[in-house]
Order: sequence, then structure tokens, then C-alpha cells
Amino acid sequence: MSYASFESATRHSEGESIIAEDIATSGVQASEAVARYALALGDDALMLGQRLAHWISRAPELEEDIALGNIALDLIGHARFFLTYAGTAWGKTEDDLAYFRDEEEFRSVRLAEQENGDFGQTIARQLIFSYYQYELYTELMKSEDPTLAAIAAKALKEVEYHQDHATAWALRLGIGTEEANRRLQEGLYYMWPYIDELFYNFEPVAELPGVAVVPSTLRARFEERLHATIAEAQLQVPDVPQARGGDRSGAMSEHRGHILTELQVLARAHPGATW
Amino acid sequence: MSYASFESATRHSEGESIIAEDIATSGVQASEAVARYALALGDDALMLGQRLAHWISRAPELEEDIALGNIALDLIGHARFFLTYAGTAWGKTEDDLAYFRDEEEFRSVRLAEQENGDFGQTIARQLIFSYYQYELYTELMKSEDPTLAAIAAKALKEVEYHQDHATAWALRLGIGTEEANRRLQEGLYYMWPYIDELFYNFEPVAELPGVAVVPSTLRARFEERLHATIAEAQLQVPDVPQARGGDRSGAMSEHRGHILTELQVLARAHPGATW
Repeated sequence: MSYASFESATRHSEGESIIAEDIATSGVQASEAVARYALALGDDALMLGQRLAHWISRAPELEEDIALGNIALDLIGHARFFLTYAGTAWGKTEDDLAYFRDEEEFRSVRLAEQENGDFGQTIARQLIFSYYQYELYTELMKSEDPTLAAIAAKALKEVEYHQDHATAWALRLGIGTEEANRRLQEGLYYMWPYIDELFYNFEPVAELPGVAVVPSTLRARFEERLHATIAEAQLQVPDVPQARGGDRSGAMSEHRGHILTELQVLARAHPGATW
Repeated sequence: MSYASFESATRHSEGESIIAEDIATSGVQASEAVARYALALGDDALMLGQRLAHWISRAPELEEDIALGNIALDLIGHARFFLTYAGTAWGKTEDDLAYFRDEEEFRSVRLAEQENGDFGQTIARQLIFSYYQYELYTELMKSEDPTLAAIAAKALKEVEYHQDHATAWALRLGIGTEEANRRLQEGLYYMWPYIDELFYNFEPVAELPGVAVVPSTLRARFEERLHATIAEAQLQVPDVPQARGGDRSGAMSEHRGHILTELQVLARAHPGATW
């Protein structure tokens, strides 16, 4: 599989409709509720991006180093959009929000924070997450908030690729050797308890009809598509209990603090450094 | 500075003239000497790419996470080309060469292997390395070996961006605060002893007139351009002795083994695994 791994990661593109800097300088200002909503979406992308970045230099194929690295950078890019937009409500920058919030102030789902484990476990997480984000951004593109809609439209193009990547690997592993099938199946078992939290109607959503996507409304379509892929890959849909505490508060997160330590150490060691 | 950090890292491009898979399947076969030459160039890119990838999740700005991550992925992409081509001489894949060579079989320059240190040190390494690679690939584009010429042409487009990125940061830091200037200057002192090795006429070069670029011929132009940028950034060209043992053998490399441990552990734990 080749998946754009041969591409320039630094090619400049012309005519993209939105960049994070534009949001920061446009004068657009998110309401408090919109900011809290954007923050949660940004935190998901940031956490998963951090996790995936660790595959660079550790993937089982050089090509896969690049593919997972590209996905990580896409997600960090999405986080930049959402955090920049959230920051407009509070006079904060994306870096303020990424580097100077404490653990309990993040709103990421625990699925995004789960450990990479082996490659099968990472692909299981990618499969679930990309299918979820595909449904989310497809709906968010229709938001009455034009900034959220523009971010979603841009992110969706990349998430479609992430979904294709995860699907192709699920099929390759699932229909591959017995060992490959087993590892991906174990990955699905490991990640499955964190699905409920993806569809939890977290706190600002009810205040934002027509603006925010109601997470619970995405679940049926998500399950239909994901279960079909799992069946096609000769895998089983896990029948396991869901983890408790799925409210994005991080109160029951095992990993958030560890991820943030790595993310924040440099910026906090040199607060306000512009060099 | 924005530097394409807002871009999709996974955008597919059409019409690129060369991809690593094409080299593997084209039937083209490098000679033994060409393979040894390509290996050295690929090893440089691989080592530096590994080092830079560590900035993802640790840069002082989210935007910079993405910029350095993109550069890392570009370099790993270049490594894939060179190692794939080298492998055609020996019936080996890029993964065989990246994951199953021992430390003493790599041919990377020590500059590529140096530690990231702080951001100033990383930018110093980027400045030196990108200026060197710019001269190298500009000449290698004219190689009589069409595969090497095609790889160089593709890599050069990306290296031009790497060079712009390093130059812009050198100016920003050098002309910035006293602290920023000091850190970059220290970075230059730290990296400077490894410059000689970039221009060492290593072993297969003499056998490949018209095909390989003779490293020593690049030095005058490299120094002219680099010294001009250093002066413009209000920095000093270091006057320090060069490190001994600059022959790409790695015999005096402090860091190569450490980098390879991380790179190779997974592939070696599961040799031949196709899952």
C-alpha cells in the first residue's frame, strides 16, 4: 500500500479556504459555548496526534512511518484550527490552550489518549476514531457557525484519507495471517470500551442547536459502517462492557497526564519565550 | 511564520515523476558502486529524519511541531528513495536496509546524528544540513544516472523549503532577543565540527564520475551562502577545530547506535512480519 507516503509533506498549497492564522487574525470571535465545543474537538485531535507521532521512527515499515506521521500531523493541524478558534473567546492563543492548561481542563475522549500498543492496537484505534470523525465532520460541515463549518470541511478531506488508511489496514490484517487477525481483534477489544464516550452529549452541545453536532445522533450510522468493515475484515464486533466515566472530564483518564507532560514540558520551561 | 504548517500532510498529488514503489518495481538495477553511494545519501536523510521527528509533540509552538514534523517526513521519504534504489543492487528492500543493517554498516554523516538539544541547536543543524543538501541535490540532478537525477530533482523541491525554513528561523532567532541569538550561536558552535565530514570524498565517489557528486566540490558555494546568512542573522561563523574521524564509517559516532535501537526494535522483534 502506498497511501501518499511518497509525497512531499511540505508542499505548499494554494487556494485552501482556511488556515489557522486566518482564524486568529480575522476578528471572528467564538461565543463561550462555541469555544467550549471547539476545545473538546481540538483536544481529541491533539491527543491522538501526539500518540500517533510516536510511530514515526518505530513503525514496522518505513512507508508506514510516513503514513502514520502524516496522519499525526493532520490531526495536530486540526487541533490548531479548533484551539485557535476556541481561543478567540478568551483572548488566548492555540499555544496558550495546548501548553498552559492543566490536565483536568482538557476535554479529550479517552479513546484518543489510549496507548499505541502494537500496530494492531493502533490500527484498531484508528479505525474507530476515523469512522467517528468522518461522521462528525460530515455533519459539522453543515453547522450554522461558518468557522466550524469551514474547519470541518477542511478536516473531512483528510479524515477521509485516515479512514481509507485504517480500513485498508484492517482488511490487510484481518484477512492476513492468523497472527495478524488475532492482534487486530485484540486491539478492537482493547479500544472498544471507550466508544460510548465518543457519543456522549457533552456539556455545551445542548446550548448550541444548529451549531454543534449532537454526538449521540452519529452513533447509528457510525456503527453501521464500522460493523460492516469489521465483518468484511473477518473480525468480530467485541461484546464487552463500556468503561465508566465517559464524560470527557478526564477524571478517569489514565493517560492524559502522561501525554501532557511530554507535550508541555518545553513550553512551560520557557514560558513566553519567543525565541 | 506559517510555512505550510496549515497544510494537509496527506494530500495526494498527481503527476509526481517518481515514487519509491516505482523504483522497486521498474526493473532498474543500481550497480554496486551506485548502491553504496545511494546508501550514504539515504542514511543521512534517514538519521536526520529520525532526529527531527522527535520535535513532534515537543516544539515550543504547535505550528512548529507540524513544520519540523513535515521536514522529518520529507527526509524519511528521501531515505526511502535512496535505500530502495540501493537495494536493487543487492535484492534487498528499503526495510531490509533500514531495519536489518548493523550500526557499522550505516554510512551517515555525524551531523545528521547529532542530538536535537534545544530549538536553537536544532535550527543550527537544519541550517547547515539544508544548505549542504541544497548544493548536493542541485548537482545530483545533473547525474548521468537517471534514477539518482530523478530522486535529486524531487528531493530538491523539498530541501528548498527546508532551507527557507532554517534561514527564516536563523534570522528570527539571530536578530531576536539576546537569549535567542546566544542559543543559536551556541548551536552553531556545537554543530560546526561536523561540517568537514559533509565534504569528505567517500569511497564509491571516485568510481562514479558523472554519476556521483564529488562532495568536496560543493564546499565553496556552500560556505559562501551559509556564511552570508550567518552574517545577516548577526551571528559569527564559528572558528573551531573539526572533529576527527569524518569518514562516514561511524567508528567515532556517539549517537548512531542509540538512534538505530529506536528505529529497529520493532522490525527486529518481528522479523519478516507482514502484518
